[in-house]
Amino acid sequence: MPIRLDTSSADFGSRFKQFLAAKREVSADVERATRAIVDDVAARGDAALIEATRKFDRLELDAGGLRVTAAEIDAAVKACDAETIDALKFARDRIEAFHQRQLPKDERFTDALGVELGWRWSAVDAVGLYVPGGTAAYPSSVLMNAVPAKVAGVPRVVMVVPSPDGKLNPLVLAAADLGGVSEIYRVGGAQAVAALAYGTATITPVAKIVGPGNAYVAAAKRLVFGKVGIDMIAGPSEVLVIADATSNAGWIAADLLAQAEHDACAQSILITDSVALAADVERAVESQLATLPRADIARASWNDFGAIIMVKKLDEAVELANAIAAEHLEIMTADAEALSTKVRNAGAIFLGPHTPEAIGDYVGGSNHVLPTARSARFSSGLGVLDFMKRTSILKCGPDQLRALGPAAMTLGKAEGLDAHSRSVGLRLNLP
Amino acid sequence: MPIRLDTSSADFGSRFKQFLAAKREVSADVERATRAIVDDVAARGDAALIEATRKFDRLELDAGGLRVTAAEIDAAVKACDAETIDALKFARDRIEAFHQRQLPKDERFTDALGVELGWRWSAVDAVGLYVPGGTAAYPSSVLMNAVPAKVAGVPRVVMVVPSPDGKLNPLVLAAADLGGVSEIYRVGGAQAVAALAYGTATITPVAKIVGPGNAYVAAAKRLVFGKVGIDMIAGPSEVLVIADATSNAGWIAADLLAQAEHDACAQSILITDSVALAADVERAVESQLATLPRADIARASWNDFGAIIMVKKLDEAVELANAIAAEHLEIMTADAEALSTKVRNAGAIFLGPHTPEAIGDYVGGSNHVLPTARSARFSSGLGVLDFMKRTSILKCGPDQLRALGPAAMTLGKAEGLDAHSRSVGLRLNLP
Repeated sequence: MPIRLDTSSADFGSRFKQFLAAKREVSADVERATRAIVDDVAARGDAALIEATRKFDRLELDAGGLRVTAAEIDAAVKACDAETIDALKFARDRIEAFHQRQLPKDERFTDALGVELGWRWSAVDAVGLYVPGGTAAYPSSVLMNAVPAKVAGVPRVVMVVPSPDGKLNPLVLAAADLGGVSEIYRVGGAQAVAALAYGTATITPVAKIVGPGNAYVAAAKRLVFGKVGIDMIAGPSEVLVIADATSNAGWIAADLLAQAEHDACAQSILITDSVALAADVERAVESQLATLPRADIARASWNDFGAIIMVKKLDEAVELANAIAAEHLEIMTADAEALSTKVRNAGAIFLGPHTPEAIGDYVGGSNHVLPTARSARFSSGLGVLDFMKRTSILKCGPDQLRALGPAAMTLGKAEGLDAHSRSVGLRLNLP
Repeated sequence: MPIRLDTSSADFGSRFKQFLAAKREVSADVERATRAIVDDVAARGDAALIEATRKFDRLELDAGGLRVTAAEIDAAVKACDAETIDALKFARDRIEAFHQRQLPKDERFTDALGVELGWRWSAVDAVGLYVPGGTAAYPSSVLMNAVPAKVAGVPRVVMVVPSPDGKLNPLVLAAADLGGVSEIYRVGGAQAVAALAYGTATITPVAKIVGPGNAYVAAAKRLVFGKVGIDMIAGPSEVLVIADATSNAGWIAADLLAQAEHDACAQSILITDSVALAADVERAVESQLATLPRADIARASWNDFGAIIMVKKLDEAVELANAIAAEHLEIMTADAEALSTKVRNAGAIFLGPHTPEAIGDYVGGSNHVLPTARSARFSSGLGVLDFMKRTSILKCGPDQLRALGPAAMTLGKAEGLDAHSRSVGLRLNLP
C-alpha cells in the first residue's frame, strides 16, 4: 500500500517532513572496494582494467580487445530492426534541435570607464559517457548524454559499457553510432570510470565523465571528482502527478506505473484535491498491474515508496511540489499552465493530460537526465552547458588601470596582500 | 629555485607531463574526523555545533549567541575606515553590473509539430556561504560569492564564519552587509557545513553551499554533496603569465609574487619565448621579494612550485596553457588579443600589460572564484548560473501526442519498459 498523507490531518507537517527525509537507497559500504579498484587502475592501467573485467564481467580480454571495432558497431546496427532505428533517429533529431537552443552566447562589452569585459564559452575537450550493462542499458540514455555533448562541440566523446559474459546490447551500440560517439570500450564498473579519469595505455583520459551507473560507478565518480568533472550522482527515478477531479484516473495510473516499473526504489506520488480521483487512481493501478510484464518491480515500488497526498486546494499542491522537488512533475489539472508558473523546484514539468512523461523520456526533445532525490532544489537537468565552460575576459588600458587601481590597492592592503597592491602600484607609479 | 622547462629539450614531453601531474596539496587523512563531526551535527544539531565550536574555536556560546546580531554588524561597519568601505562599495557595484549580464533567458517555443517546449530558470531558495576565519578571511571573497547569489534572486543567503577566540574580522561583516547576506552565524569548520546542510534548531538548512575553506571544510562539502549542492572544491591559487620580449619584467615579477603571497602552495608560472625576459623576471622577483611583507610565503611558493617554461614560439605557449588550464592567465605579448582567441582552457584571461590579476581579484567586476588545479578543463568560474536551476517544460495536445507517440512506444518496448509504452498507448487507443 502506498503512503497516504492529508494536509487536513493534525500531524501532516511532521509526517510530510519524515516522508521527505526517507531514503530510498540501501547505503552499502562500497566506498572501500571502489577506492581499491580506482587506485589499481590509476597505478597499473590496462592490466588492472583487464583483470577487473575478467573478475566482474567474466570476460577475457587483451588490450587490443578493449575497444569495440567499427565492424562490430556496423553489425550491431544491422542487427536492429528498422522501426527501432527510425525511432532512435527521430529521437536524436528532436534532442539535437532542442539542445541547439541551449548554446550560450559569448559576451564582450566596454563599460563607462572603458574597461573591456566579457566571457567566452568553449566545449570540454573530451567527455566520457558511462552506460550501464544489463537491464538498465537504455539506448535512449546514450542519446540524451551524447547528443548535447556533440551540440556543445565536444570533439571526443568516449563511451564505456560493460559486456557481462561478452554480451553487448546492439541498440546501445546503434544509439552511440547515431549520437556521434567517437570511441567505445567494453568495460564497466568503477574500473571503467577510473580508466576514463586517469587514462591507460589504450584509453586516453577525458576531462569530464557523465552517465548513470550502479553504486560502485557512483562511488567511483565521487572519488575522481576534481581530477575530472562529473555530472550529478543519479538516484532512483521519481514522478509527481498533480491532478484534480477533471483528470483521467487511468492515464494517471499508467504514468505512475511507468515510473514504478524502472526500479523497486523508484517513487510515484499523486497529489490531488479529489477524494474520488484518488480512489479511482488506486483501483486503476491495481487493475493495470495485473497485466504488466514488470509488475513485480512496479508493485514493490508502488507499495514501498508510492504516495497519495490529499490537499484542500491545489495551491497547497504546488507548495508541496516545491518541497518534494521531483525529477518529473506532471500537472494534469484544469488550470495546469497557471499552476505551473508557481513551481520553483522540479527537474521537468509535463503540462496537461496529453503529455505523459514517457514522451519526454524518448522523443520530446528535452533531456531525460534530470535531478533526482530532491536535488532539483539546486541543480538542473543535463544540457549543453554541462559540456562547456566559461572563461572570463578582462582588459584594461592605462586609463582604466588608473581609474580602477586605487580601490584595488586599498582592498589589497586591507586584506594584508601587499604584493597584490604593488602589482597595481608599480604600473601607476603609486606607493 | 623555480622549475625550468624548455620545449627544445629532448625530454620536455615527459617532464611537462610530470609537472602537470604534480600535486600541490598535502593529502591529510581528514575524512574520518570530518565524517564524525558532520554526523554529530546532523544528529544533535545545535548542541553538537556548540561543542565543536568550543573545541576548535575556543569559544563558549549558547544557541542564542550563534547568530551575529544586527547591532554587531552595524558596529563592525562603523569600525572600518571609510576609504576601505568605499572601495568595497565600488567593487560591489562593479561585480553586480557584470553579473547582471549573466542572467539567463527563459525559453518557450512551438515546433513544427505543434509541440510546446522550453525551460524556465529560477533561483535557489537558500544558499549558504562559507567564509574562512583567520588570515584567509577576505572581504572581497564575501562579495564575489554573495553578489551573484543576490543577482540570481536568491532570497536567503546565510553566511557562516568561524570566530576563533571570539574574533571576527569587521571588514568581513561589512562586506556581508554590503553584499546582501541575510543571516550570519559565528561558526566554522566541518560543523558549520553540516549545520547548513542538515539544519539545526537555530539554523534553517540551505539548498546549496558555496565558498572556500580548509581541508576539513572541503571534506565536509564533499560529504554533504547530494543532500545539498556545492560549488567547486577550491585548491591553491595559480597564475600563468605568457610574455614575450616586449613585456615589462618588473610588472610580470610583481604579478607572479601577487599569486605566490597567497599561500606556500600557490603556483606562479611564466611561459616566454625570450631568454632575456626570463632572466630579467627572475632577477626582478628576487629584488621585489626583499621588501615584501609576506616574503616567506611568496618565496616558498616560488621556489617549490614556481616555473619558467621556455618556448620556441608563442603558439607553443598557447598549447601549453591549454594543458595547464590555469585559474588565471595573463597574456602580455605584443599580440595578446589574437593569442587569447586560441585559449580553450583557463578560468579567466587578463589581456595586455595594464590588466594585472589583482584588478580582477577586486574591482574588475568579473568573479574571482575560479577553477583551480586544472579544473578549468571542465568547469567555470562562479557566476549567476551557479545560484539558479533550469526546469524544462513539455506540452503536447492530442495531435502532438499522436505525432510523437508511436516512436515513443517503439522505444519503450525496445527497452523492455512496457508501462512506458502503455502510458502513451492508453491515451491513443493503441495497443
